[in-house]
Amino acid sequence: MRGKGYTTSISYDRRLYKEDIAGSVAHVKMLASQGILSSSDAEKIVSGLEVIFREIAEELFPWKEELEDIHMNVEARLHEIIGSVAGRMHTARSRNDQVTTDLRLYVKSSIDATLMGIIDLQRAILGQAEKNISVVMPGYTHLQRAQPVLLAHHLLAYFEMMERDKHRFQEAFTRVDVMPLGSGALAGSPYPLDRNFVARELGFSRISSNSMDAVSDRDFVLDYMYASAVLMTHLSRLAEEMVLWSSEEFGFVRMGDDHSTGSSIMPQKRNPDFAELGRGRSGRVYGNLVGFLTTLKGLPLTYNRDLQEDKESLFDSVDTVQSTLEAFTGMLEDVWFDSDRMLEATDKGFMLATDLADYLVGRGLPFRESYDVVKALTTYAQTANKSFKQLSLAEYQQFSSLFESEVLKIDLKSSLMARSLPGGTAPSKVKSELRRARKKCM
Amino acid sequence: MRGKGYTTSISYDRRLYKEDIAGSVAHVKMLASQGILSSSDAEKIVSGLEVIFREIAEELFPWKEELEDIHMNVEARLHEIIGSVAGRMHTARSRNDQVTTDLRLYVKSSIDATLMGIIDLQRAILGQAEKNISVVMPGYTHLQRAQPVLLAHHLLAYFEMMERDKHRFQEAFTRVDVMPLGSGALAGSPYPLDRNFVARELGFSRISSNSMDAVSDRDFVLDYMYASAVLMTHLSRLAEEMVLWSSEEFGFVRMGDDHSTGSSIMPQKRNPDFAELGRGRSGRVYGNLVGFLTTLKGLPLTYNRDLQEDKESLFDSVDTVQSTLEAFTGMLEDVWFDSDRMLEATDKGFMLATDLADYLVGRGLPFRESYDVVKALTTYAQTANKSFKQLSLAEYQQFSSLFESEVLKIDLKSSLMARSLPGGTAPSKVKSELRRARKKCM
Amino acid sequence: MRGKGYTTSISYDRRLYKEDIAGSVAHVKMLASQGILSSSDAEKIVSGLEVIFREIAEELFPWKEELEDIHMNVEARLHEIIGSVAGRMHTARSRNDQVTTDLRLYVKSSIDATLMGIIDLQRAILGQAEKNISVVMPGYTHLQRAQPVLLAHHLLAYFEMMERDKHRFQEAFTRVDVMPLGSGALAGSPYPLDRNFVARELGFSRISSNSMDAVSDRDFVLDYMYASAVLMTHLSRLAEEMVLWSSEEFGFVRMGDDHSTGSSIMPQKRNPDFAELGRGRSGRVYGNLVGFLTTLKGLPLTYNRDLQEDKESLFDSVDTVQSTLEAFTGMLEDVWFDSDRMLEATDKGFMLATDLADYLVGRGLPFRESYDVVKALTTYAQTANKSFKQLSLAEYQQFSSLFESEVLKIDLKSSLMARSLPGGTAPSKVKSELRRARKKCM
Amino acid sequence: MRGKGYTTSISYDRRLYKEDIAGSVAHVKMLASQGILSSSDAEKIVSGLEVIFREIAEELFPWKEELEDIHMNVEARLHEIIGSVAGRMHTARSRNDQVTTDLRLYVKSSIDATLMGIIDLQRAILGQAEKNISVVMPGYTHLQRAQPVLLAHHLLAYFEMMERDKHRFQEAFTRVDVMPLGSGALAGSPYPLDRNFVARELGFSRISSNSMDAVSDRDFVLDYMYASAVLMTHLSRLAEEMVLWSSEEFGFVRMGDDHSTGSSIMPQKRNPDFAELGRGRSGRVYGNLVGFLTTLKGLPLTYNRDLQEDKESLFDSVDTVQSTLEAFTGMLEDVWFDSDRMLEATDKGFMLATDLADYLVGRGLPFRESYDVVKALTTYAQTANKSFKQLSLAEYQQFSSLFESEVLKIDLKSSLMARSLPGGTAPSKVKSELRRARKKCM
Repeated sequence: MRGKGYTTSISYDRRLYKEDIAGSVAHVKMLASQGILSSSDAEKIVSGLEVIFREIAEELFPWKEELEDIHMNVEARLHEIIGSVAGRMHTARSRNDQVTTDLRLYVKSSIDATLMGIIDLQRAILGQAEKNISVVMPGYTHLQRAQPVLLAHHLLAYFEMMERDKHRFQEAFTRVDVMPLGSGALAGSPYPLDRNFVARELGFSRISSNSMDAVSDRDFVLDYMYASAVLMTHLSRLAEEMVLWSSEEFGFVRMGDDHSTGSSIMPQKRNPDFAELGRGRSGRVYGNLVGFLTTLKGLPLTYNRDLQEDKESLFDSVDTVQSTLEAFTGMLEDVWFDSDRMLEATDKGFMLATDLADYLVGRGLPFRESYDVVKALTTYAQTANKSFKQLSLAEYQQFSSLFESEVLKIDLKSSLMARSLPGGTAPSKVKSELRRARKKCM
Repeated sequence: MRGKGYTTSISYDRRLYKEDIAGSVAHVKMLASQGILSSSDAEKIVSGLEVIFREIAEELFPWKEELEDIHMNVEARLHEIIGSVAGRMHTARSRNDQVTTDLRLYVKSSIDATLMGIIDLQRAILGQAEKNISVVMPGYTHLQRAQPVLLAHHLLAYFEMMERDKHRFQEAFTRVDVMPLGSGALAGSPYPLDRNFVARELGFSRISSNSMDAVSDRDFVLDYMYASAVLMTHLSRLAEEMVLWSSEEFGFVRMGDDHSTGSSIMPQKRNPDFAELGRGRSGRVYGNLVGFLTTLKGLPLTYNRDLQEDKESLFDSVDTVQSTLEAFTGMLEDVWFDSDRMLEATDKGFMLATDLADYLVGRGLPFRESYDVVKALTTYAQTANKSFKQLSLAEYQQFSSLFESEVLKIDLKSSLMARSLPGGTAPSKVKSELRRARKKCM
Repeated sequence: MRGKGYTTSISYDRRLYKEDIAGSVAHVKMLASQGILSSSDAEKIVSGLEVIFREIAEELFPWKEELEDIHMNVEARLHEIIGSVAGRMHTARSRNDQVTTDLRLYVKSSIDATLMGIIDLQRAILGQAEKNISVVMPGYTHLQRAQPVLLAHHLLAYFEMMERDKHRFQEAFTRVDVMPLGSGALAGSPYPLDRNFVARELGFSRISSNSMDAVSDRDFVLDYMYASAVLMTHLSRLAEEMVLWSSEEFGFVRMGDDHSTGSSIMPQKRNPDFAELGRGRSGRVYGNLVGFLTTLKGLPLTYNRDLQEDKESLFDSVDTVQSTLEAFTGMLEDVWFDSDRMLEATDKGFMLATDLADYLVGRGLPFRESYDVVKALTTYAQTANKSFKQLSLAEYQQFSSLFESEVLKIDLKSSLMARSLPGGTAPSKVKSELRRARKKCM
Repeated sequence: MRGKGYTTSISYDRRLYKEDIAGSVAHVKMLASQGILSSSDAEKIVSGLEVIFREIAEELFPWKEELEDIHMNVEARLHEIIGSVAGRMHTARSRNDQVTTDLRLYVKSSIDATLMGIIDLQRAILGQAEKNISVVMPGYTHLQRAQPVLLAHHLLAYFEMMERDKHRFQEAFTRVDVMPLGSGALAGSPYPLDRNFVARELGFSRISSNSMDAVSDRDFVLDYMYASAVLMTHLSRLAEEMVLWSSEEFGFVRMGDDHSTGSSIMPQKRNPDFAELGRGRSGRVYGNLVGFLTTLKGLPLTYNRDLQEDKESLFDSVDTVQSTLEAFTGMLEDVWFDSDRMLEATDKGFMLATDLADYLVGRGLPFRESYDVVKALTTYAQTANKSFKQLSLAEYQQFSSLFESEVLKIDLKSSLMARSLPGGTAPSKVKSELRRARKKCM
């Protein structure tokens, strides 16, 4: 027969065995508690499911491709183990409310794991920020050196992004944390179920409000995929900087041996493969989101088989995000920042031009005019092939009589220290931000 | 010169004039309050900005393409109106923190408007659910008739989706509600600004924690785009059903004259153009999300000109979402449900088969065996060209001795009433859900 | 070590073993032919590779995860089999030109297989069109019945789409059909290679023109992914119609037992699972395209590790497209069209209104006026609860004196026959299109 | 009324006025030539359309929002100008075949313009390659310096990408070049039209084969969008390099004044805004493709109003691609390559390591062993803080006795010259490739 196997999902949905069995155990306990099932039947079923759980965990389970999915594999095996009582397990339940319960449980635990992964990476970032607390580097706009900043300040920008990522996953959690069992195939169940009992057993905060929505809702899959996409966007930015900074041209970082690949011939080369792969893998996580949005587009209510597509791309996003977080945590723990190269890059050019302009504004010159003065001054210095440091007060004063001797004290340090508003790069501020950040990762 | 105009944004960013002027006013007031600007200078600037605001609102403003963007147009005009004092407005501010402040203000008010739009649509849905509270229709899985449900129950499924949509936008709001001014170009500001003053003036809940993140973060644009994409997914499902239901084959709804297009020749035809367009427009909202994720991928810190792409696609999502919500609200208010056709469709087939199986389970037969009995019974009835209603008790009992006379009482009404768990389609439950829903839309 | 395994690809790139070995064999033969390698060395290597080929094909190959990829697994195994001569295989070759050669060979054979799959589906479509050559059905716009058409004409629309799909894949073939070996790591090779020899051995039509482009180009992956995305769009449209048509409301088709899933309780139900899954899987194929476009965005030349992402999503698109083609071919061969239901649907309503208008135009009335006359006539008939057939000539003439007795002969058949321009639904035209189509699938 | 204006398209489809009028003129001429319309009527209509064409071109046309689209605006105006004869223009035509004809004409001319734009950019690339024919630079893998190449060779890699882009657009052209008029609303036309006459008038190569496909096919929109997406991918890579190369760290290029933005305060800064914007705009072109794929997913035949979404995103891709091509052409013409900085970067490190290994292979050492020798040698040199040039023959021979005095002649020049296979970076080869390339842009 042409197309055989097209509808089979066992190759990937077996991954949900823990959730599937947990869901069945909770359901059966509730059936017994409500008198819909006898205690002895319930005990048999639960024991049988425990056997199956161990068989799968120990890779002894006799998977059958022809049974198509995890649910039928479990149920058929239960029949083999406990006989016809197994037929009572599915009482007052439908495949439709069962499968979405499994998937919600899976997403909940995936979010927990992802949050742990993010915190690990945040810790690695903070570790580097703390270790390099006095390292100065150029801050860039347009990939052009613009103003001096602390490396720790730069790294904390990533910490902030990940704070938002955590919030996004936490919010996804509140929406997935809804128990759908009892929705039946689509219309609800005629049995006297205790839906809240099942919710408590499985650790859900509340139960679904509409059976038709409950069996066709897959927003929670999208929510995980989206939070992942934004996280990967942030990681791709970090990756880009790691790649740039490990180029000979920048020379700001040196990747550790475990997180770079040497050339087979040039021992000094350290290809930032981890960073590159992580950057590239943003693509697949975007693709998973787009793909599943497309799958959902225009589907009438309620369950349609299209929804079977909710798993593989979700699993792929979960795996990609978690392995990338782990890889980047390792990479960040293992990277060495070349503070000399960074300082050297900061010292060149005219990165303190803004400070000079602010100096003039402080002496009463309107902002736009200050800019014009400093622009002329910079052009002069550039032509004379001098840095600001090398200019005399007299030279300064050729451009504005407002310049006085304090202007000669403007340097990297004064520039950094001046930016002491909340959020600024002043060392004192960065240190307090670091402490605040540490508290969030305890 | 080749490529002239490539970097110009004034054709679309003029839309941010309110936010740009509000931001400048708050900034200038704070500068005065902190003694960075004199009160009289601040007053001149604020008055000038008020003039400009009116000029733009009244379409009298002399836009200049060559000034490229909204900020320069406003600033240059301010010069014309109040002279060189205008040059002080930009003190202690950078284009980089200014533009993201504008955009955050815009997203905040767009979220408010979108929430209003969702609530309007929810009300229209509830209005139809209430008006048609006793209408019965087939519930579908795989677009096959499966079990009877109330139309109101079906409609409430959409209400639930929109509840999640509202939460998604509200959460987006908490993340966008952060004031970035004072971040300077990227490193913070050396002036003694009162960032919280500005936040209060502009209605922001808090200030940003890291200047480099603040000028390069556009997560809030993604958040709006994503919440929109999921909302459009839901609307595309509703649209699909409106299209299906207005086909001659279903015949469940009749679109109002204002929300359908008649054929130029067949007066009885009512093309569901609004529903079709709304369905199709899910595409552009997905596309905007993908597009901007792509733009952000792999960008190093901090501001890069790529970020200018944050506006047009955002505006397009805002416009599409809001016009679609309004159009669908109108469409839903204006639609007529054909309860006779729906009932007729529900009465055909063997939609009560599940109820018969549940009856047997209630009498002690394991679930899987009950299914087998009812399957055999249904095959018999089908062959005999009878509906369940037309079967005698004797015929039932040929398939199981557990059938007794109460089985003859199973009908549409009993089926519906039995599903009285929370979330089920029983009329009593649906009515209480409707009341609960109404309260959320007050 | 954190992140271990992050860069490993052997779990998926082993799939390229045939291509990898074929590439090495051709390369080694050329080296020998050019005198760069001795004949005896070349023979040893080729024999060793043949052993490896058989080991893999027979699943006896000792895969080593720690060797990371297919290339190192093969090369290391070759060392075990033939000793240090194995070290000469990689002479004048780089991983960079090797891996893209493998992938190009893979895409070429995937295109061939996909083309076969499309042709199989076209044949199934033609088979149904021929079998149902006289079946009439409503043609739809806006999912509203509009004009009668032949089912065969409708089916041929899908044949046409697939003709374009074939062209898209064929054009992708011409672009992938370029041999990159000899490009070295990026700069070309200093050895006297015969690149055309290798191209001939491997069946490539030509060699690459620029070594830096050759090692960084992955357009051919995008081309396959795009052609797949459009094909899946077409299949999703076909799927949508199969789902609609197998609903009770339409009742136009009955899916075969092998290509639908019965309800576990309602034996008469036939859920069109194959069609639904195929429709849903359009999403993943779109997602793969978007994902890899994203991966490529903004990469500097030449090889970057991001490019390793070229495989999994490509494999997924290949597998999805091919399994969907096969499943749909099976589904189409196995479907039964209910010509009575289709005819019945065609006879209702006023689907011949356009024919009446055209009749009047033929008698000299301007088009827009004709439309107005027929609109009034249809309103009259509708109110009188009559079909056009039931109207008398006198009734017609109340609306226009141009109506004469021939108007009474307008019927389904005349409507169909009239549309006899190229591309129209007239039976004669459809038959000749069918013959033309058959020739293309020989 | 809520939702008013939701279906209106006149704000954007007026852009198709040329195509719409051209289509009508061709149709009317054919009607006259076939005797369906009188010559005098046809002449009146054509004259009226010419008036309208001029009115629109000269911005004198009285657009009416309430007429919703370009077609109704033209037709209504024609009525005003020539009276009721206007009602005959639409004889034997439907909105469905009319609108797709317009759009096909538009795509055809857009492809022509895009091809011109690509060729202009290719010329700018060749111009720089020719001007800098002897400039040497590091070739990169993983953004690490790997082997020396000619800048011209690097630039020619982009030329090759654009050759493929041209082919992609040309192939899109062959598929869009099909005339759909005569397909009617969906079923074909009952009039004795001469479809080939219309095709010739409008410059189409052939006519459509199936009326139902003709009115619902939008593959040609996707084809343009896809070819654009790949082109923008290429341009984003070029942009990334321009951004990198104009950083202080690389310092390889200096953007011209017209194609960069100076800092308002640092006159030496040249922000590569054009490159950044072009890179960022790849996102919207990807988004347009995804969006329209989504719109098409799962649509039943034939015309559905969803298809109205075929225009805005297409227009946006056309505009973005064309303005980006123009901007990048200007940018490339206006860029200055710093050959000293490039040479300096090439001279550092151990970029000739591969050449040394190849030298040993040439003396009979297996490839992998040669690598090991050179790796040891490089480590030695690195530790001794010497470049290869500074090593004596004796030092070489400590690592392999195969080293002889010729090894001392290996230098940048010899490395480049050695790579003289087709596609290699040897100056002679690059020059001949340049000549070949020029011929393609004549």
